[in-house]
Amino acid sequence: MSAFERTEYQRRLADTVARMSQQGLDLLLVTTPENINYLSGYAGWSFYTSQALVVSPSLPEPLLIVRDMDVACAKFTAYLSADYAIGYPEEYIGGDKHPMRYIARVIQERCGQPRRIGLETHGPFFTVAAHKEITSALPAAEFVDSAGLVNWLRTVKSPAEIAVMREAAAIAGRAMACAREHLRPGARECDVAAEIYRTLIGGEPTFGGTMPASFALVSGQRTTAPHIQWTDERLANGRAVNLELGGSRHHYHAGLSRSFYLGEPPQSLQRLAATVLDGFNAALEAVRPGQLCEDVEAAWRQKLAQGGYEKKSRIGYSIGLGFQPTWLDFTASLQAGDRTVLEPNMTFHMICGMWKGADNFVVSETFCVTESGHEILTNAPRELLVRT
Amino acid sequence: MSAFERTEYQRRLADTVARMSQQGLDLLLVTTPENINYLSGYAGWSFYTSQALVVSPSLPEPLLIVRDMDVACAKFTAYLSADYAIGYPEEYIGGDKHPMRYIARVIQERCGQPRRIGLETHGPFFTVAAHKEITSALPAAEFVDSAGLVNWLRTVKSPAEIAVMREAAAIAGRAMACAREHLRPGARECDVAAEIYRTLIGGEPTFGGTMPASFALVSGQRTTAPHIQWTDERLANGRAVNLELGGSRHHYHAGLSRSFYLGEPPQSLQRLAATVLDGFNAALEAVRPGQLCEDVEAAWRQKLAQGGYEKKSRIGYSIGLGFQPTWLDFTASLQAGDRTVLEPNMTFHMICGMWKGADNFVVSETFCVTESGHEILTNAPRELLVRT
Repeated sequence: MSAFERTEYQRRLADTVARMSQQGLDLLLVTTPENINYLSGYAGWSFYTSQALVVSPSLPEPLLIVRDMDVACAKFTAYLSADYAIGYPEEYIGGDKHPMRYIARVIQERCGQPRRIGLETHGPFFTVAAHKEITSALPAAEFVDSAGLVNWLRTVKSPAEIAVMREAAAIAGRAMACAREHLRPGARECDVAAEIYRTLIGGEPTFGGTMPASFALVSGQRTTAPHIQWTDERLANGRAVNLELGGSRHHYHAGLSRSFYLGEPPQSLQRLAATVLDGFNAALEAVRPGQLCEDVEAAWRQKLAQGGYEKKSRIGYSIGLGFQPTWLDFTASLQAGDRTVLEPNMTFHMICGMWKGADNFVVSETFCVTESGHEILTNAPRELLVRT
Repeated sequence: MSAFERTEYQRRLADTVARMSQQGLDLLLVTTPENINYLSGYAGWSFYTSQALVVSPSLPEPLLIVRDMDVACAKFTAYLSADYAIGYPEEYIGGDKHPMRYIARVIQERCGQPRRIGLETHGPFFTVAAHKEITSALPAAEFVDSAGLVNWLRTVKSPAEIAVMREAAAIAGRAMACAREHLRPGARECDVAAEIYRTLIGGEPTFGGTMPASFALVSGQRTTAPHIQWTDERLANGRAVNLELGGSRHHYHAGLSRSFYLGEPPQSLQRLAATVLDGFNAALEAVRPGQLCEDVEAAWRQKLAQGGYEKKSRIGYSIGLGFQPTWLDFTASLQAGDRTVLEPNMTFHMICGMWKGADNFVVSETFCVTESGHEILTNAPRELLVRT
């Protein structure tokens, strides 16, 4: 039931071990749900408890240590042999005994005395308390920051991952079409969100969706607040609605944002939309291998400046595998100062938006860098979507 | 647009400050999304970036520090004055500058030199890197572990919170009824999940749902894996399906689990279900103020033993406010060894399940402790639900 072939996971493991060797690591303690999934296939909704995947050159497979009741989930989702999915007892839940103590013991039993251990210090779900427990339980080891080690491997996708992201993109397009159908004056925001989620989860006739890591539907005055949640208010005529949704397949994402207007859009908004679309297209044209991330943002910024606008925030980020609450790879950003070189099979969610007085407009696509330029994975009309 | 009246938040703040005083704290750095929401109303989907709510006896309101673009979300969701919602610039996103550096500076400007600062060391979104940054940026302060300070306040709900949880419970019941309608042999798991989410988010005709923090639909052999996600396989006749869903209203939850069987359930499963329901009822009867959490679990365990069964894991936990990935309060558990005294207005999700060979059965309710016993908030038939 793993999302990919065993060989895909073995390649990922080999790449990880190679990077560990560059950093002089005996052991990598993987604690980010995405990275655990990436290296093992494990896809349990169990990351609110401490868990870890141990990668070591001395082990033929990664060693997964989760709550005892979640070992069954490993059996169904991870490619690991039975001896590489270990459960810690229930006494480590809800009381004073921290699961990291157990994890430390398993490390000692299976990996001896590792000298230099990499930790994911920027990842959620590896708490300050967990960090304190693991470091004090293994006092002979040196702990170093390996933030980003696996994330950067994840940034360049394999053909199998691109195929899965294409499926996620198809789901995203279907959900946006569903939104077009249901967004109308008088509809409650929550009911529109409900229809969109129904489409995102049900997916396509030939494959289903997994739970998207994020979603936003904002309307009216609240469009100034990009990460706000929907309400149960009714949509009013003469108002904008911004949507940011992601199709999800095997927890891989394709993000897609669009702006709607309920009623006749003001001229000023139409002009703003045209400018943003010009900038968006200019940025897209700048995407090809060898360009820097900041070059893409500069193309957008330059076009905006010609239209008399300025915008400072990044216009995109590496996207792919993600569990709640986000689908970001947390590596490359399409942003001033980001000198990451674009490579084939990198995937980005590029999202360009402008807020100007009462008007705002946002558009995004998920694209893949190709040998010669880019391929847009998502598919939906890009202009301001007018609903009456 | 805050979920509660200003006075509700002010009471929560006063209670927090009183507990801080007991721990000799000048300042509490709140970093858990639930606790930030509890004390301010802020409900942005922005917790994948660093953010914090600063509570200090020297401040009349908590001080919220979020990414600049999320200040607008604070305006719409938090009860705070404009001067108490501060944004850090975009240069702290995606690069080397950590937002905690900015947060530390705001603390120094607004709160002087706090001597003793409490941290939420068990919270999932306060990363090891964030901890390192804040402690090194405020070298004169002593940092102590305040894990659970706000969570324990949250454990006893106010009447306003109970009212919101009643609404969440109504949504949960509606979603379970929807599941009964759509669970049948031949349906794809993802399509059933899609219909359930549609109901959870759309909510009731008079109020909508917010995004539930967790959900599980597991079928067939996978019922041994409680935290696995749905697939796009078709449900087969002669198989069990377990559902764990939560209605959510203003991010407060009521959890509800049920077992379904597609086709004619085996006698052995019916016997197991009867035993679990006996144990569940025995545990419920033990719920009243003054009892200990472990007493409730003991009542279940004793009844099970009479039926020849044994189960070691906890049978419930304090439930309420939650953002992804969980609705747990992370305080009291209905578990052997948990000597928390039950008080009126505590709320629990009690979930009793047994796995025995090929058979399994799970049942749960969300209840509120009352002056004389308990009140069950959720409402759905409790027996094994048979679908053909």
